[in-house]
Amino acid sequence: MNNYISENKDRFLNELLDMLRIPSVSADPKFKQDVLRTAEFVKDRLSEAGADKVELCETAGYPIVYGEKIIDPSLPTVLVYGHYDVQPADPYELWNSPPFEPVIKDGKIYARGACDDKGQMYMHVKAFEVMMRNNALPCNVKFMIEGEEEVGSANLATFVKNNKAKLAADVILISDTGMLGNDTPSITTGLRGMSYLEVEVTGPNRDLHSGLYGGAVANPINILCQMIASMHDENNHITIPGFYDNVVELSAEERAEMARAPFSLDKYKKALDLSDIHGEEGYTTMERNSIRPTLDVNGIWGGYIGEGAKTVIPSKAFAKISMRLVPDQTSEEITEKFTKHFESIAPASVKVLVKPHHGGEPVVTPTDSVAYKAASRAYEETFGVKPVPVRSGGSIPIVAMFKSELGLDSVLMGFGLDSDAIHSPNENFGVFNYMKGIETIPLFYKYYAEMSR
Amino acid sequence: MNNYISENKDRFLNELLDMLRIPSVSADPKFKQDVLRTAEFVKDRLSEAGADKVELCETAGYPIVYGEKIIDPSLPTVLVYGHYDVQPADPYELWNSPPFEPVIKDGKIYARGACDDKGQMYMHVKAFEVMMRNNALPCNVKFMIEGEEEVGSANLATFVKNNKAKLAADVILISDTGMLGNDTPSITTGLRGMSYLEVEVTGPNRDLHSGLYGGAVANPINILCQMIASMHDENNHITIPGFYDNVVELSAEERAEMARAPFSLDKYKKALDLSDIHGEEGYTTMERNSIRPTLDVNGIWGGYIGEGAKTVIPSKAFAKISMRLVPDQTSEEITEKFTKHFESIAPASVKVLVKPHHGGEPVVTPTDSVAYKAASRAYEETFGVKPVPVRSGGSIPIVAMFKSELGLDSVLMGFGLDSDAIHSPNENFGVFNYMKGIETIPLFYKYYAEMSR
Repeated sequence: MNNYISENKDRFLNELLDMLRIPSVSADPKFKQDVLRTAEFVKDRLSEAGADKVELCETAGYPIVYGEKIIDPSLPTVLVYGHYDVQPADPYELWNSPPFEPVIKDGKIYARGACDDKGQMYMHVKAFEVMMRNNALPCNVKFMIEGEEEVGSANLATFVKNNKAKLAADVILISDTGMLGNDTPSITTGLRGMSYLEVEVTGPNRDLHSGLYGGAVANPINILCQMIASMHDENNHITIPGFYDNVVELSAEERAEMARAPFSLDKYKKALDLSDIHGEEGYTTMERNSIRPTLDVNGIWGGYIGEGAKTVIPSKAFAKISMRLVPDQTSEEITEKFTKHFESIAPASVKVLVKPHHGGEPVVTPTDSVAYKAASRAYEETFGVKPVPVRSGGSIPIVAMFKSELGLDSVLMGFGLDSDAIHSPNENFGVFNYMKGIETIPLFYKYYAEMSR
Repeated sequence: MNNYISENKDRFLNELLDMLRIPSVSADPKFKQDVLRTAEFVKDRLSEAGADKVELCETAGYPIVYGEKIIDPSLPTVLVYGHYDVQPADPYELWNSPPFEPVIKDGKIYARGACDDKGQMYMHVKAFEVMMRNNALPCNVKFMIEGEEEVGSANLATFVKNNKAKLAADVILISDTGMLGNDTPSITTGLRGMSYLEVEVTGPNRDLHSGLYGGAVANPINILCQMIASMHDENNHITIPGFYDNVVELSAEERAEMARAPFSLDKYKKALDLSDIHGEEGYTTMERNSIRPTLDVNGIWGGYIGEGAKTVIPSKAFAKISMRLVPDQTSEEITEKFTKHFESIAPASVKVLVKPHHGGEPVVTPTDSVAYKAASRAYEETFGVKPVPVRSGGSIPIVAMFKSELGLDSVLMGFGLDSDAIHSPNENFGVFNYMKGIETIPLFYKYYAEMSR
């Protein structure tokens, strides 16, 4: 198989670049046609690779690309999940090359979606092609590639509920996470959940002159800042009543185990150009971004933000706020607690509105399963080192949903790196990592099929 | 003269509408040509009205329109100041009719600049025409109409310094303020100063994924909110060290005098649709917006502010912050204290940058001067009531500058109303007020000339 992979390397890369040229930003309606074109692209490549029953499954939002190859119903079935939509690319001016004009530089593919998740999702399409062309597919496989992951997978749960038979499988395989490093492969065994809301604070019913009214009416920006500031205490604990009620504290052993993962605080600060880190008292950086819940403002706006100066007290101020959740918090519980708290701390001089965007549940996946062991062996064979189990701070809400709806565990074989800058300007994905994924995935199938016998 | 005014009412209105159609937004470079066209417009109307030596005086920024009529060097000279630039009009979507397509509805002229200051400035051009056509100009007059008031009059001081002889006069006459009501005329006797700054808070050197980094690095938006929130205490006193050091407290008598001005808190709250007011403990609403200094965020932005959700920790967050000052605070002193304080409260996990925009000094004008008495008589004759002296919360920084550079007091004959929504969507100016101004101004000249003898 490795010969086939090396012979076709350039084509594998060019096909990915072609897909990266389509700006499939699901958050912004103006890219709707591009998102749909991307779905068609994935559908066509799946068919060419040898999948059967390839189709676009309509949803209330963007379609889900489905395809399968059933070689023997008595063999286990792997359900591959990925997404073809990408994050918005702005601020565009911070990109060194246009986000939707992919370039390969210093062994890295630069483009929005290069890693998250077009690059990692497409590794599976190509790995499938490799196994098909070499008559080496050892079990059944199904593909479910959605187009709304970056906006909360609003319609995926319904699709899964309505298609349980079609999606019947033994394990779910996902590459939408990262590794510690190219010399330190790792497998993600935990994900944080999320509660994402938008808040609106209204002061006076119209914008006011800050000279004539300043000091006498509530300025919604100042008030919003006060409300946001009050949601962390001096130790950076979140002050929402009951926020930590359901948080599972890790044992000293588990924390010691985590602390073994290689990590350099100096390198971390240097990479982000930080003079100091910032986070919850009593926890390490690796713990803060994985096993602890957070509250971050992802966007804020209000008043005059153009060039120059305008002396205005705006009528409204807005913020997008997300909270990352850990077991056993639930997005519904936290969304409710946030909303109740936010309304309760609003002074009588303003009106507030809280609009929940989307949520997802935290998850921890087993490390003693056949799937995990098969994945571990696959990495060990291609990287030469046994991969480390790691709990990630990110969220893939659908992992918990797959567990509850389909009763299936997911194995998270990520090949990205922290330096890939996903969700940021200059997102990139190593050619090394892309090819390593295409090489490693067939080995997962091989060992998974063997060990399942 | 009143016959001439009523006969020419329509033309007076149409000329103003023509000027309002030119979007002379000085804060936004994309309107540069329009700002310059507006200067030409004012220049031409001044000449037609009968002014001599009309010219555009070049500055480092937008030109100053100058014109004069010297009928007898032995008579007193009135120097009229006004500005032809306007505030930005956004948010456009909140206007009931386009800001630069003026309409007259229910006796009000709706357009950006209708009141501030095109409408009020043009009353002086027309009042001058009225006096000229009726051989009723009783003293000398000079006009100085600038185009950078809404961005801090950056180049006016230099112009004044370099043209002291040309601008020599006995009093400065300005209509860039308001009255308490059409049945309660008032004359502004005090103005607040201002210190306007823009702040930038930088966390990580690039936008980060809030899942992978959330909780472990400083989020510049959260930090900026904390810093802004900390600048007011629970009594809404400003916490910047030394901020109140030079504030002149009014005597009980002066506060009692102020309290006599008609004011209904219920009407005030109803007009702004506020359930409650908000301001500095221990002061009334009228005091909070006139004799007390303030700190307001005029604009804030950072992170993802587009449609939908983006889970990002931005690299930077920004805010525009202005402080209104009262005697004897100075903008230089307060700008320095703010900057020092803002830098001192920044945690080590972020970098901050403070950029001063512009400032102006507070001022209190005498009520026992000939000019004030002449203005008072003029209002009394046209409105039938004696005008009330009022200290305004707004800032016209150049009033203090005129005093220091030219040694001249200003008389602030405003004809606008609170409901004119200056600096807001749907700015408007009553046709009644526009015509009343044209009627009242010549009487000021008459009594000022008489009483100066």
